[in-house]
Amino acid sequence: MTDGNAGKKYLSDYLEKSQSILVSFFNEKLTDAEKIGSLPKKGLESFINIALKGKRIRGALFCLGYQAAGGRVTQDVIRASLSTELFHGGGLVQDDVVDSDDTRRGVPSLHKQLQKLTKNTTTRFGESLTIFMGDIAMFYGYELLSTSNFPSERVKRAIAVFGTYTTRTCYGQILDIGNSFKQETNETDILSVMRWKSCEYTGVMPLMLGAILAGCTDKKKLEAIKRYGLALGWVFQIQDDILGMYGDAAEMGKPVGNDLREGKYTLLMLHLAKHGTNEQKALLKKLLGNKEMTVADVSLMQRTLKDARSYEYVLGLGRKYIAEGLKEIPAITQKSPVQTILSSLLSYMMERMR
Amino acid sequence: MTDGNAGKKYLSDYLEKSQSILVSFFNEKLTDAEKIGSLPKKGLESFINIALKGKRIRGALFCLGYQAAGGRVTQDVIRASLSTELFHGGGLVQDDVVDSDDTRRGVPSLHKQLQKLTKNTTTRFGESLTIFMGDIAMFYGYELLSTSNFPSERVKRAIAVFGTYTTRTCYGQILDIGNSFKQETNETDILSVMRWKSCEYTGVMPLMLGAILAGCTDKKKLEAIKRYGLALGWVFQIQDDILGMYGDAAEMGKPVGNDLREGKYTLLMLHLAKHGTNEQKALLKKLLGNKEMTVADVSLMQRTLKDARSYEYVLGLGRKYIAEGLKEIPAITQKSPVQTILSSLLSYMMERMR
Repeated sequence: MTDGNAGKKYLSDYLEKSQSILVSFFNEKLTDAEKIGSLPKKGLESFINIALKGKRIRGALFCLGYQAAGGRVTQDVIRASLSTELFHGGGLVQDDVVDSDDTRRGVPSLHKQLQKLTKNTTTRFGESLTIFMGDIAMFYGYELLSTSNFPSERVKRAIAVFGTYTTRTCYGQILDIGNSFKQETNETDILSVMRWKSCEYTGVMPLMLGAILAGCTDKKKLEAIKRYGLALGWVFQIQDDILGMYGDAAEMGKPVGNDLREGKYTLLMLHLAKHGTNEQKALLKKLLGNKEMTVADVSLMQRTLKDARSYEYVLGLGRKYIAEGLKEIPAITQKSPVQTILSSLLSYMMERMR
Repeated sequence: MTDGNAGKKYLSDYLEKSQSILVSFFNEKLTDAEKIGSLPKKGLESFINIALKGKRIRGALFCLGYQAAGGRVTQDVIRASLSTELFHGGGLVQDDVVDSDDTRRGVPSLHKQLQKLTKNTTTRFGESLTIFMGDIAMFYGYELLSTSNFPSERVKRAIAVFGTYTTRTCYGQILDIGNSFKQETNETDILSVMRWKSCEYTGVMPLMLGAILAGCTDKKKLEAIKRYGLALGWVFQIQDDILGMYGDAAEMGKPVGNDLREGKYTLLMLHLAKHGTNEQKALLKKLLGNKEMTVADVSLMQRTLKDARSYEYVLGLGRKYIAEGLKEIPAITQKSPVQTILSSLLSYMMERMR
């Protein structure tokens, strides 16, 4: 097993190389939006403000999928890869409306930013604008594929696959909303949300799209990519849960303990609810969804999750998925440098601090 | 000038022919949704309940665009044409959330239907689910194109065009929200909203998509289609405004006077605000946005708009756009039966009662 360094470098290289392409796409779109009106332009500007702050993991995975299928990453590939980031960005801002989240990537969430454009005190203004800005961002995702410079047959297939995963992700959001309104949720429900709302479009979708645009039609290879991507998606999501409880607020761009505060069951809470002592379970019940939670409460919960071995359990689960992902690599590519990155990324997903 | 009969028949034929194709697409998607969970399935079922009640004007225009470019309408063309209806449906349900509308097409709006699935009394549940169901419907629109059975090059172009108009429509929604929060709006703002939020994707988009999928690359012809479609879109929108004030509630599936009640300036109100007597203007000011408005108030406003010749002015504007549309027909097609339908549809758009 490789450490996370090569994966980390791959991601930071992508972040750097994609920056000017993303900025110039946005500039083009700002010109279009301005032709329609000043509010469309302001809406897009605020969205860009958030969109440029992303880690762009999905875009990088798209390029890696392209390489894994034997392609060489060009400017055109990077431009197309940003489709995944635009979809991701659009989904996040709508998600923040639904969850009434105030902060995203260290700045006010989009509906909070847009609300400032009116003196009206209801939150409807910012929220309504954000619903449609989210739609637009997702359409830009499709646009980056449909206007890409690849053989039409591949583009058509890629857009169909994009559609499969964008749809699943939104159904995952629906599951999540369903759970958050239930009195009791069970493990199956929670794992379903994670898979559909996050793992699939984070891990599987970008790798598949890259491979398809590179011309891959080999079913066995595509299936291996799917399984690797799903394992990677799980590792990503597991670390997300861990960072949500143990991460650094400044690094993360949002307060630590947010999942707990919002009453969202994560794998950590789920383990505690099942295996904790009665006292530990009572604490979880007291704090979960408690908007008045203090920093001391968060610290107490951090210790409790370690005492109950919930933390250890979730780490173990992450390692299990890393092993599952590693197994698939030989069937994906024979190229040693690409294999190294695929392997290293699995590790990096659990090492990352943001 | 032809009367609206041929156009009306074209639309009702399409409604009939597309029914089983739409139903079987939805059945396929219900199977997918159920695999993800019961709430996704319920969400889609409620959406379908509304989606099947549409007039499907846009889908019919898609087929007409296909014919205008020399193609013959097959099952494959009808399936692809439903892309415009899915986008339309997704936009409507999100629009109802933003406007807090309770009724759509004679049944409770989607967020109202979905709210019934929870005992929770905040409206967030139904609204949140609807945001994502709207996204999904729009993605299904893309899917109907990306999985269509046409040469990939055409499909790629069509999806790019679809993206241009879906994006514009959502920017139009943003303009509309901006206007509704302003103290004063002007004619330019209102016309902009109508154009971007409605005319373009209703009139231009479907005709263009049909023509492109039929293989049309003739720029002059496409430009003529664009101008015809925009004129048709205006006629459609003008009649929408008239029906909103003078239509039959049962026929429309929503209360008459809704625009007035919601404080939305339409072309009718705009004319009255500009050219009415002081007394008439005072009445408009009193009723616009007044949620307590009675049936008698609506009747009074109907008479007032006629007295002030606002009604006549808007009818005249409709006739102007009909004439503009008619001019374009010879450049679109030489085929006499298609010309007849293009011409008749312009008339029908102003004759329609729903």
